[in-house]
Amino acid sequence: MNFSYTNEMQEWLRSVRTFMDQEVYPNEAVYEAQLRAADDPFAYVPEVMESMKAKAKESGLWNLFYPDETYGAGLSNLAYAPLAEEMGRSLIGPEVFNCNAPDTGNMEVLARYGTEAQKEKWLHPLLAGEIRSAFCMTEPEAASSDARNIEASIKKDGSDYILNGTKWWSSGAGDPRCEVLIFMGKTDPDAPTYEQQSMIIVPMDTPGIEVKRMLPVFGYDDAPHGHAEINFHDVRVPESNLLVGEGKGFAIAQGRLGPGRIHHCMRTIGAAERALDILCARADARAPFGRALSEQGVIREWIAEARIEIEQARLLTLQAADRMDKYGNKTAKKEIAMIKVAAPNTALRVLDRAIQTLGAAGVSDDFPLARHYAAIRTLRIADGPDEVHKRAIARQELEEQRKV
Amino acid sequence: MNFSYTNEMQEWLRSVRTFMDQEVYPNEAVYEAQLRAADDPFAYVPEVMESMKAKAKESGLWNLFYPDETYGAGLSNLAYAPLAEEMGRSLIGPEVFNCNAPDTGNMEVLARYGTEAQKEKWLHPLLAGEIRSAFCMTEPEAASSDARNIEASIKKDGSDYILNGTKWWSSGAGDPRCEVLIFMGKTDPDAPTYEQQSMIIVPMDTPGIEVKRMLPVFGYDDAPHGHAEINFHDVRVPESNLLVGEGKGFAIAQGRLGPGRIHHCMRTIGAAERALDILCARADARAPFGRALSEQGVIREWIAEARIEIEQARLLTLQAADRMDKYGNKTAKKEIAMIKVAAPNTALRVLDRAIQTLGAAGVSDDFPLARHYAAIRTLRIADGPDEVHKRAIARQELEEQRKV
Amino acid sequence: MNFSYTNEMQEWLRSVRTFMDQEVYPNEAVYEAQLRAADDPFAYVPEVMESMKAKAKESGLWNLFYPDETYGAGLSNLAYAPLAEEMGRSLIGPEVFNCNAPDTGNMEVLARYGTEAQKEKWLHPLLAGEIRSAFCMTEPEAASSDARNIEASIKKDGSDYILNGTKWWSSGAGDPRCEVLIFMGKTDPDAPTYEQQSMIIVPMDTPGIEVKRMLPVFGYDDAPHGHAEINFHDVRVPESNLLVGEGKGFAIAQGRLGPGRIHHCMRTIGAAERALDILCARADARAPFGRALSEQGVIREWIAEARIEIEQARLLTLQAADRMDKYGNKTAKKEIAMIKVAAPNTALRVLDRAIQTLGAAGVSDDFPLARHYAAIRTLRIADGPDEVHKRAIARQELEEQRKV
Amino acid sequence: MNFSYTNEMQEWLRSVRTFMDQEVYPNEAVYEAQLRAADDPFAYVPEVMESMKAKAKESGLWNLFYPDETYGAGLSNLAYAPLAEEMGRSLIGPEVFNCNAPDTGNMEVLARYGTEAQKEKWLHPLLAGEIRSAFCMTEPEAASSDARNIEASIKKDGSDYILNGTKWWSSGAGDPRCEVLIFMGKTDPDAPTYEQQSMIIVPMDTPGIEVKRMLPVFGYDDAPHGHAEINFHDVRVPESNLLVGEGKGFAIAQGRLGPGRIHHCMRTIGAAERALDILCARADARAPFGRALSEQGVIREWIAEARIEIEQARLLTLQAADRMDKYGNKTAKKEIAMIKVAAPNTALRVLDRAIQTLGAAGVSDDFPLARHYAAIRTLRIADGPDEVHKRAIARQELEEQRKV
Repeated sequence: MNFSYTNEMQEWLRSVRTFMDQEVYPNEAVYEAQLRAADDPFAYVPEVMESMKAKAKESGLWNLFYPDETYGAGLSNLAYAPLAEEMGRSLIGPEVFNCNAPDTGNMEVLARYGTEAQKEKWLHPLLAGEIRSAFCMTEPEAASSDARNIEASIKKDGSDYILNGTKWWSSGAGDPRCEVLIFMGKTDPDAPTYEQQSMIIVPMDTPGIEVKRMLPVFGYDDAPHGHAEINFHDVRVPESNLLVGEGKGFAIAQGRLGPGRIHHCMRTIGAAERALDILCARADARAPFGRALSEQGVIREWIAEARIEIEQARLLTLQAADRMDKYGNKTAKKEIAMIKVAAPNTALRVLDRAIQTLGAAGVSDDFPLARHYAAIRTLRIADGPDEVHKRAIARQELEEQRKV
Repeated sequence: MNFSYTNEMQEWLRSVRTFMDQEVYPNEAVYEAQLRAADDPFAYVPEVMESMKAKAKESGLWNLFYPDETYGAGLSNLAYAPLAEEMGRSLIGPEVFNCNAPDTGNMEVLARYGTEAQKEKWLHPLLAGEIRSAFCMTEPEAASSDARNIEASIKKDGSDYILNGTKWWSSGAGDPRCEVLIFMGKTDPDAPTYEQQSMIIVPMDTPGIEVKRMLPVFGYDDAPHGHAEINFHDVRVPESNLLVGEGKGFAIAQGRLGPGRIHHCMRTIGAAERALDILCARADARAPFGRALSEQGVIREWIAEARIEIEQARLLTLQAADRMDKYGNKTAKKEIAMIKVAAPNTALRVLDRAIQTLGAAGVSDDFPLARHYAAIRTLRIADGPDEVHKRAIARQELEEQRKV
Repeated sequence: MNFSYTNEMQEWLRSVRTFMDQEVYPNEAVYEAQLRAADDPFAYVPEVMESMKAKAKESGLWNLFYPDETYGAGLSNLAYAPLAEEMGRSLIGPEVFNCNAPDTGNMEVLARYGTEAQKEKWLHPLLAGEIRSAFCMTEPEAASSDARNIEASIKKDGSDYILNGTKWWSSGAGDPRCEVLIFMGKTDPDAPTYEQQSMIIVPMDTPGIEVKRMLPVFGYDDAPHGHAEINFHDVRVPESNLLVGEGKGFAIAQGRLGPGRIHHCMRTIGAAERALDILCARADARAPFGRALSEQGVIREWIAEARIEIEQARLLTLQAADRMDKYGNKTAKKEIAMIKVAAPNTALRVLDRAIQTLGAAGVSDDFPLARHYAAIRTLRIADGPDEVHKRAIARQELEEQRKV
Repeated sequence: MNFSYTNEMQEWLRSVRTFMDQEVYPNEAVYEAQLRAADDPFAYVPEVMESMKAKAKESGLWNLFYPDETYGAGLSNLAYAPLAEEMGRSLIGPEVFNCNAPDTGNMEVLARYGTEAQKEKWLHPLLAGEIRSAFCMTEPEAASSDARNIEASIKKDGSDYILNGTKWWSSGAGDPRCEVLIFMGKTDPDAPTYEQQSMIIVPMDTPGIEVKRMLPVFGYDDAPHGHAEINFHDVRVPESNLLVGEGKGFAIAQGRLGPGRIHHCMRTIGAAERALDILCARADARAPFGRALSEQGVIREWIAEARIEIEQARLLTLQAADRMDKYGNKTAKKEIAMIKVAAPNTALRVLDRAIQTLGAAGVSDDFPLARHYAAIRTLRIADGPDEVHKRAIARQELEEQRKV
């Protein structure tokens, strides 16, 4: 048992941190300004994003999320964790390093399950950061915490598949660079429960795809990325676009979720750390009743509790990453479920207190607090709500206790 | 001690409830659609708002907030409380009945402290719902929880006053119908602490007023109402616009806050009740793992805890209203401080659990949950953050305990 | 709706308060000292208790709990509430006024359901405070939150009944003055679910009753009162001891619980108020780092939150009392369930913070904090755990929402 | 960074676990029975304790806490942590392995600061488990969270020192085997703040020592160990009993606290784990409304939250242990403060929910829940209350943030 970072990990960390300091933070306002100046923020990508990406790529800080050297930096989950944390401190950070969801998850799916042709066409441009992608699983009419409820259909028709259904919260589908999406639907509603679903690759410009609207998150449209509601009406794609084979959708989804969840947790901890920075700086700067906020007992309690909670959430995340590295995602599922619950709740508490410390400025966009709050609030829902994960943790705990 | 509503109160309540059911709820989506269709949402008032207002006025459901029959319905705070709660269930409700902030507070100030000429010019159009108003007190560079920190200046120049300073969170200043604002600034920085400030009436079209930007609350711009940051650069108004006299600003502000706070609390409880309605309905409608959410233990705990907390917050609010009616706002200041803390925190907990029950739909605008959450989150900050009020409650509690 | 106490209520309150100040508080330490000096605290009643009782009786402050003038003061629940609160400030308070559990509940049962002979023999000595009683319902092997699980048996044998079974948490059975207990068991396990149980009066000296042990509550034995585990082995009582009739046990239990619960809640609020007194006084008296605790932000937050929570719990309790008075215990069952959950949880939070403020003294018996904590902690369990009540509240809430 | 236990650590863990299973748990009830059968529980040590100690010593599971091989097992804090956790699962566990407070702290002080003669006389019998000891620092009249407030005096008189003052919460002083105590008092009230205090060794049978009473924790007397209030009236000890030198008391106290705190945290986590075991087993065994508690959503939430919180508290404790091993207690002081706050609060939440799950049995002594609750509740107070540690954490956090 050893809690120190290796020299190599520290070296990576220094590089990412320096890049964040020199490139990302100073450009947050620039990014926002360029976006707001656009006629249609969903038809435009701020130029500063592409220039930051170019610099990150050049510096070798690119695709760090991918654990296999063929496609990425070859870092273990444990090694990647502190880097993702750094990126997560800024809402524009992950994309700069080509480490943003849902593209990371889609790249993993294509790398693990894609044919050579599929990789050539979609994986390589994604790895190069040239295109973006979306993932279409959640549906408005189904309780999506239970994948069995999916209603969208994928029907064979000659050498094609025809897709029908409505998806929403297809994040990233608003981006003008989004050229492809992965669609989950049922190929056989009569198959065994977990073999009814399949996943298929769908080019964004296929006829029959209608982006109905962009869903706001606490008022944020998250342009140009966006969270789309999409109608699929007789959308026809060749059978070669199917991933792995019919009935493999659920299994692919499971494999996709582990790393996706831990990446979210790492970034979330970064957001919490930044909120604590902002809280402390403001507490030093303001003295409403003649005494700096940072001298006041209640604020000090908040700072201490934030520090304690963040440390604990980080350690739990690192432990989960370590177990994933050592024993695989399946064995580590309890650990993954635990951080899926712990990290967002921790970050929301810290963010809420940072907002309270800043007062009116905290709920505005002058600081990245309200926006992070909204984004992280969705993590208590996405990929299964807290309650579903807690139930799974309890079930496993009870089983383990019975064995003793 | 008696907890039943009088017949008269029940009659009022029935009328407002019926109006909400028949006019307001069905038009929420219409209002939103008209607003979104506008080129500039800050330059447009949805037509449906004006037609609802006309109907409310016609039905005698108008200016119910005002406790004096000269200007309003002549209801006590205790009698008005359940009506404000009903209105607060909808974000567009209060305006329909001409009972929305900050106009209510401004009307009270004008009615209590205004000259006949001031009333004629500003109070009557406000009471008629023909114009809107803003209140300019909070400043970006001062910790506004302490009114002594205000930096804006009001300087005598001949028979005029000249105003300088920057204000933000001037809610309502975005509305195209906003024709007047009340400005707080220092007339004499060398006077005793609570006599440095004055309040003055400023027509919105006075030269030197520059609306710099509209501040978002989380991601909401709250158009057309809006929360403005405004520069005042040598803004000149006649001395007759001063309210009461130099050095009376702090006293007016104190008098304004009591009713304003309790109205917010009443509406907040309405928002919590509506969230609980939505939670329960959804819990009945969805069955993710083959069993309705409303059959599941965790959801049932949330429902019960919400009911318990809402009842308690309502009773505390009614008690505060009763004390204000009987002993005046000053004597009831501890009670007002208590609900100022209790009501928003209660509502936020209920809203958060409603959001969690609805999942992705909860953070979107398909339901009035995220929007209410954002709006009520600001109430933990506006008019003094929770922590300032808790300190005041504790101070008073300690004093009372020492006397025993 | 009116939140003021009537003059009559204020008069009662003044009398009880004066008696508490002059007789009860000063004798708390005396009571404790007399008890500790006894060889066997379960065989001895401190003399000071009997002398305080005599004074209370003489002052007309006796049996205030009983809402019918035949047997008690004839006060409504709403009128009795503030008196019970005062009594509950001291652990020895309720007995002084002959208002202590489980005797109050037993007296109510005897008064409502007893025959003249039963009243003559047991009710009158109880009303006179000459004897004490116990209530035997809970069983160690059954989840007693569900009365259907009761396993004890009451079998007809000629003109007698024969009782068998094991009961525990029979509070009051340790008292040397305890001469009678009410026993719940099944007369007919094959009857409809809620008609299997009966209640029967059992003199404490009936052969076959074996008090196995006294159960501690967080280390407290609560002598001489005590919480007994009792074996009933072929305990024979005449059929005339049966209450009402066979199969009426569940109905009697339900009727007994409403007032019992609300009395507990009232007393609990008194305990919370006293804890806040102690907290405030200590916070003024100690200055660990050169500044009085009462000047420190964290302590002030605790004081304010305690005040807010106590006020809310009291109002909810008063509202429940008012509904019981107006509409009966059955109609008020949701309100009773709400305070059953709210009051103890509120008091425990206040007590815990008072303990923390006092430090080591807080967990000792030098202050009535740890002891109150232990006693009130059991109220989250007794008469159904919080979770059962919350489920009931939610069920009713859902039903009401569906009707709208 | 690596989260696996070394083989050596796993071997130790297996040995301690086996010993707990075979010797300690089965003898908990025996210990309790022997103690209760004693006339005076403070004059008697249950025989089973001495026989368990003999077996542990024989098995080499002895003095595992001591990090130096001269006196103990030579295990690092990180290696000892999981062993202390195992011991802490039982209230009688730590003493069995001669790893109980305050003896461990006293042994450390004697080993680090004692002269050869002092070691010979007191350390060796303590290491052998032949005698017990107490530590007299806390005073009833001082806010002991601030060591500067200590009022007891140590005055030079010829070649002796004369001690006066009142100490309380001198844990362990009730034990008939307690032969020595370490006393903290002021040798020079005029010296610089942190050089006024000294520590001195006092044989328990020195004239002038009067054990006034044993303080209960909630209702527990914790016999034979006990928490004593002790008067020191002109207690005379030779100057050779002084530890290190005059004015070194504060420094010794600081050095003593680090390991003491982390040991408490480790044991606390063990207590939380055992509570979760008991909760799960009971949840499987009881089915109040026809469905096992372990199938119910609310209980499952509790289990999951307990597991998440325990894991986090353990990791934070291990991290603190690792930093103490690598950088020393002083450098790790923020980490130590964090677990001092986090571990007891976590354990109390788990214990409270276990109590609630068990119902009435939970507050009794039939399960080690209420007793553990009471014991661990004191850890939020002892060695500085939570609030003092949080203030220290915040101060350090703010300093670190300012440097960035």
